[in-house]
Amino acid sequence: MSELEKVLAANAEYVDAYPYPEDLPHRPTRKIAVLTCMDCRLEPDNALGLAVPEANYIRNAGGRASDDALRSLVVSTRLLGAEEIFVVQHLDCGMSGTTQAGIVEVLARENLTLEAPASMVDWLTIGDPEATVRADVEIIRNYPLLSADVAVHGFLLDPKTGALLPVTDAD
Amino acid sequence: MSELEKVLAANAEYVDAYPYPEDLPHRPTRKIAVLTCMDCRLEPDNALGLAVPEANYIRNAGGRASDDALRSLVVSTRLLGAEEIFVVQHLDCGMSGTTQAGIVEVLARENLTLEAPASMVDWLTIGDPEATVRADVEIIRNYPLLSADVAVHGFLLDPKTGALLPVTDAD
Repeated sequence: MSELEKVLAANAEYVDAYPYPEDLPHRPTRKIAVLTCMDCRLEPDNALGLAVPEANYIRNAGGRASDDALRSLVVSTRLLGAEEIFVVQHLDCGMSGTTQAGIVEVLARENLTLEAPASMVDWLTIGDPEATVRADVEIIRNYPLLSADVAVHGFLLDPKTGALLPVTDAD
Repeated sequence: MSELEKVLAANAEYVDAYPYPEDLPHRPTRKIAVLTCMDCRLEPDNALGLAVPEANYIRNAGGRASDDALRSLVVSTRLLGAEEIFVVQHLDCGMSGTTQAGIVEVLARENLTLEAPASMVDWLTIGDPEATVRADVEIIRNYPLLSADVAVHGFLLDPKTGALLPVTDAD
């Protein structure tokens, strides 16, 4: 069975047991937006005690305040009513185990016919995890299209234990 | 109890009952990356039958193949070994109920002291949902830093039923 067939079979079961009404709210009912990493070990809903349809989830490599994450956070807060942003980066992140030069080198080493050099992309690698959480929280707080009324909390999650370690709220 | 206190209390319970070993794999074990929307109604793990640590999840407003999503997909496939990408956009998406001009107008109408006009951002609104899935799948397939060996599947999810509707694999 291919991964595609497995996914479609699992989805058929999900639909048969779909636990939600047809008219779920479009806006996150706990007015929360979570920005976190794409990492396969993270389950931000369970880790933060959030259920459908309580929160928006924005995820990328590192859980970074990229331009696209900021776009999504504006939509979540100003169009969908979120009032609180939880930035949840994590320990032992792949993006902190490497550097911009390291990623460019790994990608260049592979035998792809690249039409563009990997150095064109800012890979948003992470040096000091705590400092990166603080910096990304500041980027969000100062983004001119976001309201200053939105609360922004910064955390590191430890994938060994599931624990959220407050960074900015520990200040 | 504030949302912050609720989240921390829920996390303490999560840690107490943490069901995973300390040394979970860093690489998605089913070699899958999911690109989907931040929408509060979606639970991509359950909808696709995926568990920790089987997949990477990239989420933004619309589930779009933005520059940042492409960055994350390169990391997922070329550094973390994913071999298959599921693009899961959805029906009744907030990004398809509006336009670039509509978002700019809504944001301008609010009484924020904006240092930057909302028209500076491409909000990646969605006209025809099926056409947008097809276009984003093509963007991913043609991205020069991704390998042509990665399979890319495009879907629309119906949040009324949880059903995945194949778009590109229905061709």
